Amino acid sequence: MQVTLALDAMGGDEAPRIVVEGADIALTASQQRGISVRYQFFGDESRIERLLEAHPNLRGYVDLIHTDEHITDFSNPHLVLRRLPRSSMRLAIESVEQGEAQAVISAGNTGAYMALSKMILKTLAGIDRPAIAGPTPTLKGLSIMLDLGANIDRSPSTYFQLAVMGHFLAQRVLKIEQPSIGLLNIGSEEAKGGTLIQEAADFLRQEPALNFHGFIEGNDIHAGKVDVIVTDGFSGNISLKTGEGMVKFLAQVAQEAIQSTWRGKLAYLIAKPTLLSLKKRLDPRHYNGATLLGLKKIAIKSHGGTDSLGFSMAIQRAIDIVADKHVHSVGQDIEDFLVNKNIEE
Amino acid sequence: MQVTLALDAMGGDEAPRIVVEGADIALTASQQRGISVRYQFFGDESRIERLLEAHPNLRGYVDLIHTDEHITDFSNPHLVLRRLPRSSMRLAIESVEQGEAQAVISAGNTGAYMALSKMILKTLAGIDRPAIAGPTPTLKGLSIMLDLGANIDRSPSTYFQLAVMGHFLAQRVLKIEQPSIGLLNIGSEEAKGGTLIQEAADFLRQEPALNFHGFIEGNDIHAGKVDVIVTDGFSGNISLKTGEGMVKFLAQVAQEAIQSTWRGKLAYLIAKPTLLSLKKRLDPRHYNGATLLGLKKIAIKSHGGTDSLGFSMAIQRAIDIVADKHVHSVGQDIEDFLVNKNIEE
Repeated sequence: MQVTLALDAMGGDEAPRIVVEGADIALTASQQRGISVRYQFFGDESRIERLLEAHPNLRGYVDLIHTDEHITDFSNPHLVLRRLPRSSMRLAIESVEQGEAQAVISAGNTGAYMALSKMILKTLAGIDRPAIAGPTPTLKGLSIMLDLGANIDRSPSTYFQLAVMGHFLAQRVLKIEQPSIGLLNIGSEEAKGGTLIQEAADFLRQEPALNFHGFIEGNDIHAGKVDVIVTDGFSGNISLKTGEGMVKFLAQVAQEAIQSTWRGKLAYLIAKPTLLSLKKRLDPRHYNGATLLGLKKIAIKSHGGTDSLGFSMAIQRAIDIVADKHVHSVGQDIEDFLVNKNIEE
Repeated sequence: MQVTLALDAMGGDEAPRIVVEGADIALTASQQRGISVRYQFFGDESRIERLLEAHPNLRGYVDLIHTDEHITDFSNPHLVLRRLPRSSMRLAIESVEQGEAQAVISAGNTGAYMALSKMILKTLAGIDRPAIAGPTPTLKGLSIMLDLGANIDRSPSTYFQLAVMGHFLAQRVLKIEQPSIGLLNIGSEEAKGGTLIQEAADFLRQEPALNFHGFIEGNDIHAGKVDVIVTDGFSGNISLKTGEGMVKFLAQVAQEAIQSTWRGKLAYLIAKPTLLSLKKRLDPRHYNGATLLGLKKIAIKSHGGTDSLGFSMAIQRAIDIVADKHVHSVGQDIEDFLVNKNIEE
């Protein structure tokens, strides 16, 4: 199986280094799985060439397309659409649109990525705006949460579209026939959270194709109360990042406590293998690579602050989606459902 | 020093048991600190009397005011205002308004508590709606976060009022002369998060009396990036509860990992005292008891799902506020600032 990926080599706090290094890690991992990968790197040729010198094995799998323009975290997404016709992010997205690559990956400015992807790749019929969907570890395994920051608008139809997208993604990725869907609110009681979210819930209750659980609260996310967590991009992003920050906080507090007593230090030495495998399991880099859901083609968003390993996980998530026909067809599922629904109405 | 507290004995998932037991724990703790406490219990006399039988020491410090009416988590806050004139929550709040008690504590329906407190206790001059403010553990110590769920409205003036309230609370409670204030957003860059939150930030930047840091993200909360975290009640509540859920998730995952290997089990036995003190430090019950800020009198909100120890912490927080003249005057600080500001403009 041959997969070609378009990488925005200039996106992310540590780009282009993490992109080059991450691509090498993902290349090796894919070759071991019998998947043949080619990369298109879009960005500053001389900087990337210099980095590639340290990765001779990778060089033969890379096409380098030079551009001077790139989008920073401080770029205004709306200006980016009109100016910067040759930004590394934009060229990478266009490559997917033109069928040269099967998926695009960027760790760059989320707002610009969303706006450019929407304009160039187009949204699915029935979807107004794409959403960022990511896997969330829970006590029961994995759930899917969306939107994680693409779209801060709130309307009953936004929530409905998010629920439909989450439903089909969970069906394909989590292999659950009727995934349960929860709407994130500030109380699980029906009267809470304001008129808008109440209307959204009414809307979802009336849809027989969805297994709508009702409202859930923030503490239900990692308990695994539902398979799909639906929320607006503002609350979703804050929830995701609060959780990440809490993991770091707890890890540091626990480490300091253990290192503060001789009993703790001794116990650490004894349990080191167990603790290291626990650390690995909870490492947020392993959950890096969120899907820009609702587009006609595949776009993956990496955390901007990730490192090489984290970026390699985002690449591998793109490869998984391209290589898995079932997951690949999520977009078609969503479109079919929403178009048929519109015809019926 | 004599403190009289009005307790809504019927609020909370495990009420009235946790209220009676929590009151006993807080009574003992206060007596040890030389503070003399009296309680008014509002609720079902026969149920409370039965519970008090197991707490003979507490009985002499309790005035029991019977009522049949109480507010459930499913009560609509707006209907509660017009009906239920003798709900346990309402009577407790009225006792503070009439000067019979110095603070009210409830673990009941947040929306109803907010609406009743606002109507009966009145908001400070310059404050439109009260906010829930709570302490948040960080790598640097403690921060104050608000709003945690009182008010889901968003407007530049709401954020401004939250920042002013947080500023004065942090000054008094954290003893920081110029507490840094961060506005929670989905990106720390200035262009993110939509027009409304941008306007709120502009508003805050122009206020010389506040040490406005700018935007922060969810992962900055527990890192301790700022002393005061300002957000709307919807995002704040979701962030708070996501963090709580993450602590539970990590604790369970860590426990399972440690119990799964003989090395882990041995290490656990050795480090048990250290781990137990760590567990205690991270116990969310110790952070229970959020302040309903912006009211003319003192109202404390306990987590609805807390237990006796957690409820006792909420009572002790109320006692601390009543007993500490400095903290007591936060309301006056806020009012003076906002009224003077209005006169100047």
